[in-house]
Amino acid sequence: MTLTGKMLIGRQPLCGTREAIRAINPATHTPMEPAYAGGERQQVEQACALAWAAFDSYRETTLADRATFLDTIAERIEALGDELIERASAETGLPRPRIQGERARTCGQLRTFARCVRAGEWLDVRVDTAQPERQPMARPDLRQRHIPLGPVAVFGASNFPLAFSVAGGDTASALAAGCPVIVKAHGAHPGTSELVGRAVAQAVNDCGLPEGVFSLLYGSGHEVGITLVSDPRIKAVGFTGSRSGGMALTQAAQARPEPIPVYAEMSSINPVYLFPAALHARGEALAQGFVASLTQGAGQFCTNPGLVIAVQGAALDRFVNRVSELLPRSPAQTMLTAGIFSAYAEGVEALTRHARLVAQGQAAQGPNQGQAHLFLASADAFLGNAHLQAEVFGATSLVVACADEEQVRRVSEHLEGQLTATLHLDEDDLVPARTLLPVLERKAGRLLVNGWPTGVEVCDAMVHGGPFPATSDSRSTSVGTAAILRFLRPVCYQDFPDSLLPTALQHSNPLLLRRLLDGQREA
Amino acid sequence: MTLTGKMLIGRQPLCGTREAIRAINPATHTPMEPAYAGGERQQVEQACALAWAAFDSYRETTLADRATFLDTIAERIEALGDELIERASAETGLPRPRIQGERARTCGQLRTFARCVRAGEWLDVRVDTAQPERQPMARPDLRQRHIPLGPVAVFGASNFPLAFSVAGGDTASALAAGCPVIVKAHGAHPGTSELVGRAVAQAVNDCGLPEGVFSLLYGSGHEVGITLVSDPRIKAVGFTGSRSGGMALTQAAQARPEPIPVYAEMSSINPVYLFPAALHARGEALAQGFVASLTQGAGQFCTNPGLVIAVQGAALDRFVNRVSELLPRSPAQTMLTAGIFSAYAEGVEALTRHARLVAQGQAAQGPNQGQAHLFLASADAFLGNAHLQAEVFGATSLVVACADEEQVRRVSEHLEGQLTATLHLDEDDLVPARTLLPVLERKAGRLLVNGWPTGVEVCDAMVHGGPFPATSDSRSTSVGTAAILRFLRPVCYQDFPDSLLPTALQHSNPLLLRRLLDGQREA
Repeated sequence: MTLTGKMLIGRQPLCGTREAIRAINPATHTPMEPAYAGGERQQVEQACALAWAAFDSYRETTLADRATFLDTIAERIEALGDELIERASAETGLPRPRIQGERARTCGQLRTFARCVRAGEWLDVRVDTAQPERQPMARPDLRQRHIPLGPVAVFGASNFPLAFSVAGGDTASALAAGCPVIVKAHGAHPGTSELVGRAVAQAVNDCGLPEGVFSLLYGSGHEVGITLVSDPRIKAVGFTGSRSGGMALTQAAQARPEPIPVYAEMSSINPVYLFPAALHARGEALAQGFVASLTQGAGQFCTNPGLVIAVQGAALDRFVNRVSELLPRSPAQTMLTAGIFSAYAEGVEALTRHARLVAQGQAAQGPNQGQAHLFLASADAFLGNAHLQAEVFGATSLVVACADEEQVRRVSEHLEGQLTATLHLDEDDLVPARTLLPVLERKAGRLLVNGWPTGVEVCDAMVHGGPFPATSDSRSTSVGTAAILRFLRPVCYQDFPDSLLPTALQHSNPLLLRRLLDGQREA
Repeated sequence: MTLTGKMLIGRQPLCGTREAIRAINPATHTPMEPAYAGGERQQVEQACALAWAAFDSYRETTLADRATFLDTIAERIEALGDELIERASAETGLPRPRIQGERARTCGQLRTFARCVRAGEWLDVRVDTAQPERQPMARPDLRQRHIPLGPVAVFGASNFPLAFSVAGGDTASALAAGCPVIVKAHGAHPGTSELVGRAVAQAVNDCGLPEGVFSLLYGSGHEVGITLVSDPRIKAVGFTGSRSGGMALTQAAQARPEPIPVYAEMSSINPVYLFPAALHARGEALAQGFVASLTQGAGQFCTNPGLVIAVQGAALDRFVNRVSELLPRSPAQTMLTAGIFSAYAEGVEALTRHARLVAQGQAAQGPNQGQAHLFLASADAFLGNAHLQAEVFGATSLVVACADEEQVRRVSEHLEGQLTATLHLDEDDLVPARTLLPVLERKAGRLLVNGWPTGVEVCDAMVHGGPFPATSDSRSTSVGTAAILRFLRPVCYQDFPDSLLPTALQHSNPLLLRRLLDGQREA
């Protein structure tokens, strides 16, 4: 497939008119063809008009048809074959096997949402039947279902060129909910975005859906993004990226005449707790597991373990020493973009001013290669210095040595909101772990025991979310089937004749849903 | 019970230090004893500290204990007996039977949430069991439940001194979710608030709960409210009132270092559509029903029918004429406060400048009595003048006469978000109604056929919510059991030993919940 450098306004490929972006292979620092000219206001509005025109019909597609559409997107992405793997790997510096795994995850995610759509639980159908004889007042017939919010703007992420970009989690869950999607492609992988965008547009066409169900935009500055989020036809936003980027979109969304929800996944340092018995019994394994998790994918995961918290003592010293032996064997890795690499270097530099550097990975051998770092600070220092809690996106972590369990608790209460918190514990650690748990529940969206936070399963029970600033809205997850709930709102139908009710609410329950009927869940 | 004029900081009655508010009987314009001195910053912070201290233990009360607490509040309110009815009626000008009905609704609402808590569906338990053999990677054991957001600030409403005030819908749903509640009493009914607040505090005590589960504050200006919403220990806000009040709280909540959700129910004019066949067949009954709904409770309902939309012609003329005959028989009614009365007078005055006054109710016989009004405007005027869409809180409505069904649609698309939309239709109206329905679904939270929007059932299927500016968050309802979902967030537990899991997630399913287990809903 020849890349065209064009946006997709519905089914129409269209060349932007503004400054172009161009992918740069971060491993070689070489610009790649073609150029992707940025969209202008009028093209954004055209995409919004198409999305709006598509909304009422797309949202009433049958569950089966919508599920088939999601399955078709997965097939179309798979049909892109090796070209997608090559391009994504070249644009991101991520190795081929990683991209292959991410493609499997992306397509699996689309199929998981297809199953979720078919099951229909997300409609949350509730029926309270009429009680005409009730005193002092008759009760009307009341029926609730959920409908989608409207067209959704999705901003692709740099670190998941497939799983959190054009046809990634936000897009899949919004389409599953019945929302048309307009994607603003991430500037770091425009070619990957075009390939996937064309696959989605083909699926729209294959399934006979209105073209406005999907559009793909490019833009080098903020104009396209802010215009998109400010357009009255856009009703929600999905974003994965930096705290400043997420906050800018949230502010734009709040400043609209009609404010809209923004689901921004932003910043997390993912504390890892090493409890005494576990640290004593298996410090070596913990050190190895930690280094593997820290350096995976050059540390470019929102769930990267950026903070280690433990009570000081010989066992913690041995752990730090062992990590200090392992880390220097860890090769520097190409980061996603020059910008991310320089931000990482700045973050490391800032930490150097506030904490003690105890180990480094191998030095860079080429452009944009990030070197792993381990820092150490006392709990007192951590409690007194907000800089030590700033996310450094990359393979850098900070060990916070606490005087005792009470200080572990104080450090924990001091933390900002997180995506994850991890507890390494043995049987003898259960009491202090249980004491700490309420704090961690308040701080994070996912709690792990004896694992590592990198690696996010796409399933029903996953929560990839958490209190601010991990996300802008802790009431939701951006990974897993519960992500569909972000793009829905309830509507109640009172005393409707059956012929006017949506299928999901009709008396005969044609979709065979397990409704909440007069206070009882149907079997 | 002697009213004390004191706030409740946990179980401690405390006198404020700031300017006092005093109830004024709106029917006689007479100030009532006692004075309620406003709280200062330090007292607000004390309430927040107690709420925060109570949170971790209150949120882990058993479902049975929490339900008993809600039931106990209802009992304690009923035990207040006639004193509550007398005081509420005197403070609001609302007749005794209305207050008695509202008390029944308030207590019924608390008991409905008790049932909802016991059923435990709101925990939304999802379990994905481990697949250690899965290729290419093992799947961990993942379990999700919902936990409460944290302490909630509730702002009492003027027009429901019981059902939407101290122990009203927001408080009941937040307590049901496991959130401590701090209520800022509405200044118009401080005595009613004290009586109910003391009933809640007694229930806290009866049930052996930490005192910080409930506090009650007074304040004449914005200081208490803004301090409360800005306190880092407050994690969500419930509000029912004016658009400007709701927006001010939303902005304060967004400006915090950690922004929090605000559920503000604000402004709605609740369009009523009169379709041709229904209007032709039963214009007389529609006119009678409309006048009854319009004038009920002096029109002081957020679901008051403030807009009537129909195609022009003889049938609509007959309807308007008949309403113009009925309305002058409708007595003026005492409004809730002098402020609401003067805002109503201003709203009517503004409408007089933009639309044609066609009928009025009887003139006022005493202070603060609101007179009903009916206005008429063409669809062209309505489409061209945003003033005609401003809510006039009281018994005033505007009839918009449209040239044809297409103009009905354009007027509908032009509407802001609404709590309700009502369709009066007969068999022959089903085709145009079906055409309009998608627009109305996008505009409103509840759609009614052949009823009147005043009257909001507390049940599972109710939606009292809707797109902005009806509310600040269309993804939720403030009435009905689904209101509990506003105060919850999901947390995922990965590979937890059973002994560390919360009861709801333990392997043996001790709460007998119908979990989503490996993708299947348990029977």
